[in-house]
Amino acid sequence: MSLIVQKYGGTSVGTPERIRNVARRILATHREGHQVVAVVSAMSGVTDNLLRLAREVSPEMPPSERETDVLLATGEQTTIALTAMAIQALGGEAVSLTGAQAGIETDGVHTKARIAHITPGEVHRFLKDGKIVILAGFQGRTPEGFITTLGRGGSDLTAIAMAAAVGADLCQIFTDVDGVYTCDPRVVPDAQKLEEISYDEMLEMASSGSKVMQSRSVEFAKKFGVIFEVRSSLNENPGTIVREETMSMESVVIRGVSLERNQAKVTIASVADQPGVAARIFGAVADANIVIDMIVQNVSKTGVTDISFTLSKADFESAERALAAVLADLGPGAKIEAQDGIAKLSVVGIGMRSHSGVAAQMFKALSSADINIQMISTSEIRTTVIVDEPQIERAARVVHAAFGLSA
Amino acid sequence: MSLIVQKYGGTSVGTPERIRNVARRILATHREGHQVVAVVSAMSGVTDNLLRLAREVSPEMPPSERETDVLLATGEQTTIALTAMAIQALGGEAVSLTGAQAGIETDGVHTKARIAHITPGEVHRFLKDGKIVILAGFQGRTPEGFITTLGRGGSDLTAIAMAAAVGADLCQIFTDVDGVYTCDPRVVPDAQKLEEISYDEMLEMASSGSKVMQSRSVEFAKKFGVIFEVRSSLNENPGTIVREETMSMESVVIRGVSLERNQAKVTIASVADQPGVAARIFGAVADANIVIDMIVQNVSKTGVTDISFTLSKADFESAERALAAVLADLGPGAKIEAQDGIAKLSVVGIGMRSHSGVAAQMFKALSSADINIQMISTSEIRTTVIVDEPQIERAARVVHAAFGLSA
Repeated sequence: MSLIVQKYGGTSVGTPERIRNVARRILATHREGHQVVAVVSAMSGVTDNLLRLAREVSPEMPPSERETDVLLATGEQTTIALTAMAIQALGGEAVSLTGAQAGIETDGVHTKARIAHITPGEVHRFLKDGKIVILAGFQGRTPEGFITTLGRGGSDLTAIAMAAAVGADLCQIFTDVDGVYTCDPRVVPDAQKLEEISYDEMLEMASSGSKVMQSRSVEFAKKFGVIFEVRSSLNENPGTIVREETMSMESVVIRGVSLERNQAKVTIASVADQPGVAARIFGAVADANIVIDMIVQNVSKTGVTDISFTLSKADFESAERALAAVLADLGPGAKIEAQDGIAKLSVVGIGMRSHSGVAAQMFKALSSADINIQMISTSEIRTTVIVDEPQIERAARVVHAAFGLSA
Repeated sequence: MSLIVQKYGGTSVGTPERIRNVARRILATHREGHQVVAVVSAMSGVTDNLLRLAREVSPEMPPSERETDVLLATGEQTTIALTAMAIQALGGEAVSLTGAQAGIETDGVHTKARIAHITPGEVHRFLKDGKIVILAGFQGRTPEGFITTLGRGGSDLTAIAMAAAVGADLCQIFTDVDGVYTCDPRVVPDAQKLEEISYDEMLEMASSGSKVMQSRSVEFAKKFGVIFEVRSSLNENPGTIVREETMSMESVVIRGVSLERNQAKVTIASVADQPGVAARIFGAVADANIVIDMIVQNVSKTGVTDISFTLSKADFESAERALAAVLADLGPGAKIEAQDGIAKLSVVGIGMRSHSGVAAQMFKALSSADINIQMISTSEIRTTVIVDEPQIERAARVVHAAFGLSA
């Protein structure tokens, strides 16, 4: 008998019929002899409706974050009750728990709280009684008993954190894709599903555009050694296991290729190459609440240098405005060059650490396809290039093929 | 500075715009210098939607009561967050509390829990900080921390119980009527709003058809001496104060006239006048989960008697079936006579205790209007008659006039 934590997202529980399907799946796992804790999200659309109501009662100002949490937490609470009912209707024994009832204690940062610790006594008690526990994702409580929510990807985090707290044998993240692929199958039709991937690779894939899961949940799993599986709630196919790296993983040089569209780049050319300039640039950008991605600065010539960074196209104009305001501080000849319509292509693999020539192989593949590389950035297990957006799909296909990832 | 508990029902908070109106009213009370705890219900229609979802995920069986409570409690939780947001948007300081957070502890009888005790420390703390407390009606928690709901009229009960627990100076029940009237103004156009009424009179009015409030909330208020006001959320008119009886109340013989339609009566004629017969009759009816109202048995003649009772028309046929099954046990000549299409008219007043002739005056008024009385039942402060339903409105008007209640 294993203890399995499952997580079902908002689309999987989006209608009463889908909730019944999820209930059948949970019940099937339980009837195989396992203990099951199932984490569920709000039904798709519910959160948006609640936020619309919030705006309508508070048109003068953004609603308070404390009350936003009280409001949003009703979404998952509705799903846990309905899922428990559906399991009971199908002949199983289930009991619902809110985040607070399940002992998920967080800090007091409403709408993006961090889990401080979990006291899973209540969960264990119900499991011991033979019950299936249906747990509200995305929520917790402060030490004072106030309701908090965990922010984006919060239900995945609930599942992984609870799996760690109860010492689960496996954590299954059910989603609408079959697992993690070597590349987005809509772009590279012969992309293959990975049987397993390391936490670090998953993190690099996530941060470079493969949006299967939020990085924070993967980081949490890595920190606490929670092995989890990403798999589809629509079929019975095995998914992708995400775990600490193994020896055999290292023999694969490149695990996958990820791409991210809708990027923009900003170059501040001819800035004075002296201490404090970079701080001034990125301070101005941070003050405007803009998240930036790659930063590239090359060696300087003649006392001036160029600093480039990439960011989401959506933040492009506000970044230009923020920089224009500090341009005079950056040196006499400094000027801003900005361009959108670019995209990011990354190859990721822990094998890269012990294999040389990965970057060269990637650049050669792009060159032979006549695709120009605009920027380059690397980490220990990732190599990323910026190319023109219209070329990104072709770039992904040639790189995917060059590393032998195609079926 | 007074401490005022207010309660707003589902219609009063039925839309975002209405929630803003309620927020304005709460804020106005607070700005007059009072501390305010506002109890709110689920937005009208929300509870029905949730119950529909529950039926859809559980078509095989009625959903479990524990999970029904988890589900329904989201309705009030949504309203408290939205109401607190609306108050904040209008410049006030408000904080929401669920029943559990406000220390409302109940027994474990899900969907109709009884309040065991209230620990209002959290409420006091926020009031002391100058905050308006927005409290979820209708819900509480068991000692184990499970969510419960209080059943019909539960939000009124929350308001009155919390008023008792915090030692409120006044409890205001906002509703869609101006207060308690001497009779239903749709039936008796010159009915007058009462300035005050005693708990006992309010209870008799409620149980004889004036559905301003459920009896259990009035009983709770009586038990703990909570003075409350029933008033409209649509205007600024003073309402009706409900309180322990005073000397001056007793000088009024009849406080009001109430009527209840859709009644039926069942007579079991010629039953053996011996111990156990009544128990068998009403045991059979109770086993069928039928709530009965008046019971009348007259003195017997020649060893047999007639037992009559009234009940809601909706339960009429199941009562007939339940009785047919036990008829053979009731005596050799026993037979069932049943009739629907009747209605109930009551006069209520604590002054009745010290004034004789109330019943006679009522019967005389009905007689002079040529209305036949089919059954009579009395309590210390109420006299009730059953008449044909088509005559009920005329009966109410002549009795209302006969006791000088008209404007």
